Amino acid sequence: MLDLQDATVAVVGLGLMGGSLAAALSARQACRRVVGVARRRVTWEMARDLRFIDEGTSDLAAGLQDADIVVLALPVSQILETLGSLGPMIKPECLVTDVGSTKGAICAALAQLPAGVQPLGGHPMCGKETSGLSVAEPGLFEERVWVLCPLARTSPPALELGRRLAQAVGARPVVLDPERHDRAVAAVSHLPYLLAVALVNAVDTLARDEPATWGLAATGMRDTSRLASSDLTMMLDILATNRAAILATLGVAREQLAALEMTLRDAETDDLLALLRAAHDRREEELR
Amino acid sequence: MLDLQDATVAVVGLGLMGGSLAAALSARQACRRVVGVARRRVTWEMARDLRFIDEGTSDLAAGLQDADIVVLALPVSQILETLGSLGPMIKPECLVTDVGSTKGAICAALAQLPAGVQPLGGHPMCGKETSGLSVAEPGLFEERVWVLCPLARTSPPALELGRRLAQAVGARPVVLDPERHDRAVAAVSHLPYLLAVALVNAVDTLARDEPATWGLAATGMRDTSRLASSDLTMMLDILATNRAAILATLGVAREQLAALEMTLRDAETDDLLALLRAAHDRREEELR
Repeated sequence: MLDLQDATVAVVGLGLMGGSLAAALSARQACRRVVGVARRRVTWEMARDLRFIDEGTSDLAAGLQDADIVVLALPVSQILETLGSLGPMIKPECLVTDVGSTKGAICAALAQLPAGVQPLGGHPMCGKETSGLSVAEPGLFEERVWVLCPLARTSPPALELGRRLAQAVGARPVVLDPERHDRAVAAVSHLPYLLAVALVNAVDTLARDEPATWGLAATGMRDTSRLASSDLTMMLDILATNRAAILATLGVAREQLAALEMTLRDAETDDLLALLRAAHDRREEELR
Repeated sequence: MLDLQDATVAVVGLGLMGGSLAAALSARQACRRVVGVARRRVTWEMARDLRFIDEGTSDLAAGLQDADIVVLALPVSQILETLGSLGPMIKPECLVTDVGSTKGAICAALAQLPAGVQPLGGHPMCGKETSGLSVAEPGLFEERVWVLCPLARTSPPALELGRRLAQAVGARPVVLDPERHDRAVAAVSHLPYLLAVALVNAVDTLARDEPATWGLAATGMRDTSRLASSDLTMMLDILATNRAAILATLGVAREQLAALEMTLRDAETDDLLALLRAAHDRREEELR
């Protein structure tokens, strides 16, 4: 397997993730060449003007033909779609990876690539509630976990090249199998999103009876609801491709909320305090 | 009623809210004198060394004796307790206000103060998940809503003085009756807190089956759960004094979460998207 330094990297999709990856690779001169592929010409032209990419195109086959590493940086459903037609366009020993938010369906699709190709699922654990090239930044991946999901057929050198790619942009690679990844992100990423959605919709319902409601929203409401502003196309793909794991987290969250409701209703102060303290202490421990 | 400029302001409690208020009044030279009252000597000495207060004491009666304005900046239960013994310690026409997070019980207690005293419930809509004088800052109230709840007996000049106090530290005073305030904050402040608690406890439960879980937590999880780190004493008081309104918000949130769960389980993509879009658009509209 070649060195990252000598590789031509094609980044397909130049939104927040793809744009930031291209920007980070270029800024750090981590590879030989960065080719950007975007459906709209105006997007790759902007990426080129920003010096995030060396070269851009709207033609997928043209963008991929010289690539040693292909990174699919699209919403999950478009990654799946693109993987279906990728085979004939890429070099025989190309590393094909992605930055999609769920890994089960994508790794299954990666397994269908032609035999010589090296497939590697990927998911950098970062993002914003805003999307698009205009919010891309080379520092996005710094200090973040970048999950790598090698398939049984992925060679050790290909996995190593994937690690180097993540490290080259400042991320910490973590190898995990797709099912475990999907269960974990259902809890720490998809559940928070759905709770934020439920919160905003609940407050909106309550605000119909009490017009002062939204006017009193401060930083607590703003932070807790932030994820509700996430890109809808991206989130719908995520929900569709991680349904079972997410439903499991919703069941657990429902039970936790019911426990709070019951102890509050019955004024079981000690039990209520125990629930509040458990959350307080656990958060301090895990997220401080 | 005297001018704020000529008033001696006693701030009882020098935590995040009281410390910040004292700091803001002193930094802006908004009143004649700021007296700080704190149970522990080390607290008011620190506030004095920081020039947040002109004078400090641990003796409540001594701290209040010359005050034209008394601001109770304590957890709700301690505000209620202090109001019970305040009468004999204060000047006959003193303005007594507070920064407590719920207003129903406090306004009921304010109504019991001696006849000449001017009572005014108050709640600046700001805070942090951290507490104490060490995180106090004079800019805390800038651009924030400061709810004022005048009682039937509160004179117009006393309400005006309350407005001036809020404006003097950069806040926007909003007059609201206690019941409406309590309903509104149940939705935009106490419900987000309980959802954050349920989220952390749910993730912790799920993490027992999937050890990779906490390690994948990124900014989304961090922001959505931030309020779970709130001060427990303060939150327990809030939950106890706003129980009915909070239970109503929990019921609505439970319904919203159930709707998400049902549309996701049954793969009713259009209905699911409608719920996600409603939250997305409403948040953009109300909180951007």
